[in-house]
Amino acid sequence: MRSERLIYLPLGGAGEIGMNAYVYGYGAPGAERLILVDLGVTFPDMDGTPGVDLILPDISWLKQNLDRLEAVFITHAHEDHVGAVAHYAAELGKPVYARVFTANIARRKLADAGLPEDTVRIVSAWPQQVKAGPFKVGFLPISHSIPESAGLVIDTPAGRTIHTGDFKLDETPIVGEAFDASLWAEVAKDGVQALICDSTNVFSPYPGRSEASIGPAIKMLVSEAEGMVVATTFASNVARLKTLATAARSAGRSVVLLGRAMRRMVEAAVETGVLTDFPPVISPEQALEVPRGNLMLLVTGSQGERRAASAQLARGKYLGLELKEGDTFLFSSKTIPGNERGVIRIMNALSEKGVDVVDDRVGDYHVSGHANRPDLERMHALMRPKMVIPMHGEHRHLREHAGLAEAAGMASAIAVNGTMLDLSGERPEVVEFNETGRTYLDGTVMIGAMDGVVRNRIRLALNGHVVVTLIVDEEDELLGDPWCETMGLAETGTSGAALVDVLEQDLSQFLNRASAKTLRDDGALDEAMRRIVRQTTQTEIGKKPEVTVVISRLG
Amino acid sequence: MRSERLIYLPLGGAGEIGMNAYVYGYGAPGAERLILVDLGVTFPDMDGTPGVDLILPDISWLKQNLDRLEAVFITHAHEDHVGAVAHYAAELGKPVYARVFTANIARRKLADAGLPEDTVRIVSAWPQQVKAGPFKVGFLPISHSIPESAGLVIDTPAGRTIHTGDFKLDETPIVGEAFDASLWAEVAKDGVQALICDSTNVFSPYPGRSEASIGPAIKMLVSEAEGMVVATTFASNVARLKTLATAARSAGRSVVLLGRAMRRMVEAAVETGVLTDFPPVISPEQALEVPRGNLMLLVTGSQGERRAASAQLARGKYLGLELKEGDTFLFSSKTIPGNERGVIRIMNALSEKGVDVVDDRVGDYHVSGHANRPDLERMHALMRPKMVIPMHGEHRHLREHAGLAEAAGMASAIAVNGTMLDLSGERPEVVEFNETGRTYLDGTVMIGAMDGVVRNRIRLALNGHVVVTLIVDEEDELLGDPWCETMGLAETGTSGAALVDVLEQDLSQFLNRASAKTLRDDGALDEAMRRIVRQTTQTEIGKKPEVTVVISRLG
Repeated sequence: MRSERLIYLPLGGAGEIGMNAYVYGYGAPGAERLILVDLGVTFPDMDGTPGVDLILPDISWLKQNLDRLEAVFITHAHEDHVGAVAHYAAELGKPVYARVFTANIARRKLADAGLPEDTVRIVSAWPQQVKAGPFKVGFLPISHSIPESAGLVIDTPAGRTIHTGDFKLDETPIVGEAFDASLWAEVAKDGVQALICDSTNVFSPYPGRSEASIGPAIKMLVSEAEGMVVATTFASNVARLKTLATAARSAGRSVVLLGRAMRRMVEAAVETGVLTDFPPVISPEQALEVPRGNLMLLVTGSQGERRAASAQLARGKYLGLELKEGDTFLFSSKTIPGNERGVIRIMNALSEKGVDVVDDRVGDYHVSGHANRPDLERMHALMRPKMVIPMHGEHRHLREHAGLAEAAGMASAIAVNGTMLDLSGERPEVVEFNETGRTYLDGTVMIGAMDGVVRNRIRLALNGHVVVTLIVDEEDELLGDPWCETMGLAETGTSGAALVDVLEQDLSQFLNRASAKTLRDDGALDEAMRRIVRQTTQTEIGKKPEVTVVISRLG
Repeated sequence: MRSERLIYLPLGGAGEIGMNAYVYGYGAPGAERLILVDLGVTFPDMDGTPGVDLILPDISWLKQNLDRLEAVFITHAHEDHVGAVAHYAAELGKPVYARVFTANIARRKLADAGLPEDTVRIVSAWPQQVKAGPFKVGFLPISHSIPESAGLVIDTPAGRTIHTGDFKLDETPIVGEAFDASLWAEVAKDGVQALICDSTNVFSPYPGRSEASIGPAIKMLVSEAEGMVVATTFASNVARLKTLATAARSAGRSVVLLGRAMRRMVEAAVETGVLTDFPPVISPEQALEVPRGNLMLLVTGSQGERRAASAQLARGKYLGLELKEGDTFLFSSKTIPGNERGVIRIMNALSEKGVDVVDDRVGDYHVSGHANRPDLERMHALMRPKMVIPMHGEHRHLREHAGLAEAAGMASAIAVNGTMLDLSGERPEVVEFNETGRTYLDGTVMIGAMDGVVRNRIRLALNGHVVVTLIVDEEDELLGDPWCETMGLAETGTSGAALVDVLEQDLSQFLNRASAKTLRDDGALDEAMRRIVRQTTQTEIGKKPEVTVVISRLG
């Protein structure tokens, strides 16, 4: 048996798409020195997380092993990779390494949170390597839908491991480094122990398309449009913003950036030198003086977010700008599953204004940032690793990707969040399973996904709430009648009487008959009254509400 | 000016996809005799209608004009066309006409609700016509994704109007009548005043495909599968069930139908003679004795519904049947926007079991039931109506469809729910707008969408709930301290103390300083305490909760 080992433990991002957080360790079992790759978030929804502000990986395991953690490495600046850095930086207290653009974004987050920006350290691209305990980590440029994405070359005493990060194989990415197959091959030439690989698009059967491929269609659309043109895409897709802005310019349109996230991304990209030749932009105020046929707005909110610029423009005026009949609105984006309703709401609101809405139905106006199935096969073949560990995917993606690797003769394993793999041998071995989960930022506090807080809110939303108050005097006798208030329930039931009246009558009837013993026992009273409220409400309106009973005892 | 007119007034289904309900009227303005076409429902979701059971059109306008209503006509048996019949039949008190299969389904609904089934009357296909006041209405067979869909030929003194219902142009529909272009042309030959036309697939650029076109791919998939095969589709897609069952049979697999809705549909289709040659089915108990390689389950739940057979099978055993590594699960369906999360949840649960999930990503295993853009153009050309009124679509679909008709030289208008059009002339004219809306079946009672009941539930889900109780004695003095209970809120805030303790302290502090005048005034107390609770909760945990204040006054 080996005395030391190389381990891999996803805490987020494996078995889901979002909140990436991958631990690597090297050393004696249980005493491995650790690094963390990425520290992202995922976004709440009304279905499962109503009222929650942000979802973060549960990093309890890491906090329990904090003395073993050397450093954090961020592959790129998407929220699902960098979004939790500011929330956890203080607790972790370790250096965070990233390339310059990614570091710029991460530092802005730290600054917003009032934390020292120098926690984030800037690293140059490969061949520079950062030493972190037994690891040497280098940032290998690769193309994605944000500038400066990097795969990580993780050198360990057990061999070289490659963590792809999010990637596509784009040789003409418009902004940022093109995929350089020879560079990747060079890195892999002495053997790769394990390839930990993006799985997002494993079900997409055709080779991925380059960012450059959609330029002509966008240019034609913009030049043929007559009124104002508005385009939305992910704020972080700087290459797309450049493609869109370039189309605007060649159609004689001035560009306006709307939405804080988008201005911030462009600013960061210009500051760090990754974005050059971006056409000059004008302010919303200046835009008011320009004929609508000479304007193009680039706006946030491609996923239908209610507060973003797209939604605001769909509802009415935004910063003085307003859409009209004859204008064109382009979704240069895909809708992430789950966001359809919000996006459709905006499309219909725009349609009501007479705006022509163009989306990517036929594939002319958007390309994905992830490697498709044949691209994954190409990456596997280029790296020739002993094993492929699929990450960045739901279970179905990981399973499909593992099958793809195995079919090509490489070892593989499906490792969802919490699965610790030993990567030291010829094949990945599951050595441990740690319960992982999610942490919610709810308002300004962190709560565990299993704390029941959000589950209670979901129950309130499904069932409504009845509050019963009752006063008992010093002799354990009722003082007055029970009082009911309802929230989120129909006022009148099948009996035709007000629901609260029927509830109060039924409760009074019970209390009048209740024994002195029951009236002395808060627990018994609470349980009985709760049962009556649920039964009566079920009879009256067919719902079983949540019930809060407040018993006040005088004296 | 004409003394009589033909009007059209959608109460549901125009400006949305779902809960279809279209009024036609003929007569003197304000005294038109009316018929209603379709009476459907739409389905609630957690986003906007948590806890709601069913969404129905608000038929207040119809109830106010009930003496003018002659009859109801149902085009086909999909829930969004027939689902509200049992809920409104008693109130409307008019005959409901449908063809035999549709009537069978409608009558089952009436029977379930304890209502007389003979409200629904069976009509033969065209050329039979039903006289209803000034209207003569005939059911013109057309293909769709359910047997026996019909367009309505509505003859009026102002000319012939055609209401397409939901349709596709399928000449080989497997079950039910093929689209018969010559029959439709014959009906239109003396001129069509208005074509009221399905808009669902107006954005689909290629001609629709026939149900028969997917048979070979399904047959191949089923014959090549090794373990058990499970397929899900809409329960009402009887043709698809036949295609799937036929593939099962030719692969030597016995068919099991799982899910009440699916058994009911097949039963109705066999009873009414629209389904013949359906392979014999076995029960789930019998299936336990059959080797898994000789089984095919046809199951409900293609949209990810939590209680349907698909979800049950994804979670574990269902009626003794359990999926395993090597089994195949086919989604012979498309996911309706908004249902993605539920469908993906099932796919991943199946993936965890080692089941191969096949969906319609490449278009081999599903075809739509609606006419695509070129099919709509063909229908327009066949009918040559004076005007095309788009229905059955969101605003963006209606707008696109109106543009399509106008581009081909026909008059058109976008008429969303509540818009009354006069169809008597050369062009549609908007003559009135009536506020329409939605009615919720919430438990067992009907509530208006604007009643605030559901809005309150959404607020509870987003913000949580604080209940404050306070007792004031006969002299308007406090009896004890205020008491707080929270639901759906973090227990501990930034101060490190329990939230309820901080709330109670802040409220006590306020009450101790409150003037006698304030203590006498329930309204002032309520408002002040509510404000304190919201401020303190905001400070402690960053949320502004819903607050219920209960003040009990003794004596």
